[in-house]
Amino acid sequence: MTGPTSGALAVVGLGPGGPQALTPEAAAALEAADALYGYGPYLDRVPQRAGQTRHASDNREEGSRAAAALRHAADGAKVAIVSGGDPGVFAMAAAVCEQIDRGEQAWRDLDVSVVPGVTAMLAVAARVGAPLGHDFCAISLSDNLKPWELVERRLDAAAGAGFVIALYNPISRARPWQLGKAFERLRAQLPASTPVVFGRAVGREQEKILVCELEKADPSAADMATLIIVGSPMTRVIARPGRAPLVYTPRLAGDGR
Amino acid sequence: MTGPTSGALAVVGLGPGGPQALTPEAAAALEAADALYGYGPYLDRVPQRAGQTRHASDNREEGSRAAAALRHAADGAKVAIVSGGDPGVFAMAAAVCEQIDRGEQAWRDLDVSVVPGVTAMLAVAARVGAPLGHDFCAISLSDNLKPWELVERRLDAAAGAGFVIALYNPISRARPWQLGKAFERLRAQLPASTPVVFGRAVGREQEKILVCELEKADPSAADMATLIIVGSPMTRVIARPGRAPLVYTPRLAGDGR
Repeated sequence: MTGPTSGALAVVGLGPGGPQALTPEAAAALEAADALYGYGPYLDRVPQRAGQTRHASDNREEGSRAAAALRHAADGAKVAIVSGGDPGVFAMAAAVCEQIDRGEQAWRDLDVSVVPGVTAMLAVAARVGAPLGHDFCAISLSDNLKPWELVERRLDAAAGAGFVIALYNPISRARPWQLGKAFERLRAQLPASTPVVFGRAVGREQEKILVCELEKADPSAADMATLIIVGSPMTRVIARPGRAPLVYTPRLAGDGR
Repeated sequence: MTGPTSGALAVVGLGPGGPQALTPEAAAALEAADALYGYGPYLDRVPQRAGQTRHASDNREEGSRAAAALRHAADGAKVAIVSGGDPGVFAMAAAVCEQIDRGEQAWRDLDVSVVPGVTAMLAVAARVGAPLGHDFCAISLSDNLKPWELVERRLDAAAGAGFVIALYNPISRARPWQLGKAFERLRAQLPASTPVVFGRAVGREQEKILVCELEKADPSAADMATLIIVGSPMTRVIARPGRAPLVYTPRLAGDGR
């Protein structure tokens, strides 16, 4: 039996899709773990390994999942928590830090590491060209943990200052109207022709990419697995014969070219 | 000799550091290429392969590098352009799209793909905890391609709306004062105690991480290989006995906990 100080917790990013997007560092961290914690569908992406226990929990239980993993690590186990994409972007790394901040003193002694991954906005951007090629921001549309007024204030600030905007957590059964409201808010500031990219489940079988204009952006085209990128007034679309268009934001700001 | 239509161009993200951060998808794209283009130090990170040509160019020559790679691909070669981090974030993917947009019609027929990577802000964030755990933005401090006034306007908008701010391209020999000016600008809006993270060359031998307060943030601690994260008023630091502090931004906004 190992002592308490030998325990460790790694918060591991799986990247956007299949094994092709998993870094060797993340694969090694998963391989080394005695126990895996995570949201069920993310755990399902990790190959089974004999002797390794799995602890699946629901999407909304980040806090209790983090606490359970910390307790397990404090008992001397090598524990990994998995996140889709990057664990530092609206995901488990912050949930773990929150628990350490308010939890047992022993948790501060633990070896805690975060293994980054390709977050959804980078994967979606790569599929269509380079919409994040200039200054950009990432906003979670979930108002579970912040007031909706703050989301609106940030959308206004970002659009007004010319940031490209990546929208995480755009919609769910419990949050059906937020994305429509966000598009409405952005239409008040941005040209009707601003390119919008819907990227769903990039790198997985169910992948679906949709490019449209802000004017026509339809919230019902999104689900929980969708990441949305709303361009800035500088973002351009290149039509290509027989190929999907390229969407990009030039590095040069000021005159558009 | 292959015909023009068999050519392809992949813009490949190497991630922040060594081979441990390179996705299998990116490794496969590099392996498949007849020719590699890129900034010399990035090319040096790619293992040599017999029969593969290398075309190194200077840091500032993104446009001409992209055009040369497109010409080579249009001649029927499989070409890869390498970027450190993610090619879609202030890097080669936008430069390639710019050239396609203004270049020969034949370039629009090419098979162009972008292979994402872990961008610097994710790698730096992972090293210290989860500073990007809430809404955040990425701003390039380079005023080579945009007026400095626009940078200031974006810093003001981002700080005022409570975004965590990742600063890319903070400083160079040709741009010595911009980072100091940016800190000054941010100090006018953010608490003196706002956590600031300097992350240099994460994942490589020269890695160096520094956490300080905005009040004491010293531009001379940064160089061209540094990525800086300036927290929001919600960002917290957890002191840990015998370990580096954790820096994180809680998922919950409003009351700080």
